[in-house]
Amino acid sequence: MTQNIYDKAEFFEGYRQLPRSVHGLDGAPEWPALRAMLPPLQGLKVVDLGCGFGWFCRWARTQGAHSVLGIDVSENMLAQARTLTADVAVSYDQADLEALELPERAFDMAYSSLAFHYIENLRGILDTVQRALVPGANLVFSIEHPIFMASRRPGWATDEQGRKTWPVDSYQMEGPRTTNWFADGVVKQHRTMATLLNTLLGTGFSISHVEEWGPTQAQVMAQPALAEERERPMMLLVGATKLG
Amino acid sequence: MTQNIYDKAEFFEGYRQLPRSVHGLDGAPEWPALRAMLPPLQGLKVVDLGCGFGWFCRWARTQGAHSVLGIDVSENMLAQARTLTADVAVSYDQADLEALELPERAFDMAYSSLAFHYIENLRGILDTVQRALVPGANLVFSIEHPIFMASRRPGWATDEQGRKTWPVDSYQMEGPRTTNWFADGVVKQHRTMATLLNTLLGTGFSISHVEEWGPTQAQVMAQPALAEERERPMMLLVGATKLG
Repeated sequence: MTQNIYDKAEFFEGYRQLPRSVHGLDGAPEWPALRAMLPPLQGLKVVDLGCGFGWFCRWARTQGAHSVLGIDVSENMLAQARTLTADVAVSYDQADLEALELPERAFDMAYSSLAFHYIENLRGILDTVQRALVPGANLVFSIEHPIFMASRRPGWATDEQGRKTWPVDSYQMEGPRTTNWFADGVVKQHRTMATLLNTLLGTGFSISHVEEWGPTQAQVMAQPALAEERERPMMLLVGATKLG
Repeated sequence: MTQNIYDKAEFFEGYRQLPRSVHGLDGAPEWPALRAMLPPLQGLKVVDLGCGFGWFCRWARTQGAHSVLGIDVSENMLAQARTLTADVAVSYDQADLEALELPERAFDMAYSSLAFHYIENLRGILDTVQRALVPGANLVFSIEHPIFMASRRPGWATDEQGRKTWPVDSYQMEGPRTTNWFADGVVKQHRTMATLLNTLLGTGFSISHVEEWGPTQAQVMAQPALAEERERPMMLLVGATKLG
């Protein structure tokens, strides 16, 4: 089973105060880029893998989605999601994505935000999602970028001129990476970009779009701290289509 | 026009002594991975973009290719290629890949080894290649990896424990990168992985396989100096298929 860090009190206390937790989708700087990769949601049955507080689930309904199922391992997050949701077409299920079961051909779109880098068995979840989608359906997801994850000692280095660089090492050594983020010992799974894309291709998806998210000029103007995100990609956004 | 560094005497003198220049394909550690991505060549009309000394062109004929056209900007390299080739089904053309013209639907497979990172107008060459291929044909190529190219000051850094890291910065700032490799002022074009893949998708290819080349255990045993190539990918290998 994946480490359920979100139900560890100190982690949850930190995480719930992030802009993306407080302000929802608009608090996430990559959201405009991710939104641009979505198909029109009108009438679609949508599943959200790692739905957290359910911000995307509720937004999808404002776009006319027929229904949305949000899945998360964290009971804390689902409790909060249910509190925030007054819409019978949005439902939530508690499940570990490592061992997820979904009905076949039950969904027209799958979405996942920053959850897949916690998953050890990526092939398993992608197989499950592929079978749960109708042919031609889209899977749109974000994941921490391998450049961000690879190093055993991630963190900015600053040269004599004050320019920031990000270290990359251990890139080909896939597997767990332990970091301290709100809590000690948060375990993520490093995989190369090639492994991620080839696993998608191998489970019956075609790749339709890839973004290595970086802030726009306007975002840097509004939030100067985002400038460093231009130096190395922290997030990878992928659009894929179930072959039909 | 792309800088023709290969016809600069000091560069050519250095380059011609590389293992891959002296020993051909078997001198290139990524060749087994690249070869594994090729379709069976029996009966295919093949074009090699940036053919250098023509090693791949001649090898393709040993695999039963119907004919092979090698294209390169360097007269030095083509002169050597012609000297090494005694096969009327292999021909060579001198052309700048930035302004290449090819007949439509004339080839069943396109190959390119470590040439595309010199090209400013990637979309132009991919458009040309796409039109020159028959539907369903493969494009298989290698290119310097964006992780290797991005930094304005590329080079290994070593920490107190003697562990090597590779700096990444300026990743989102696409454009020329000038390095000194056999000659001063070798200009390469940095593009993100996303731009490369999306340009392929936008010119009518589907992605079929991606490799971020790293040495196998056996290669490191045979050539210990290759170990550092596991820390960060230097080369990206891509297999794509013309839709149609």
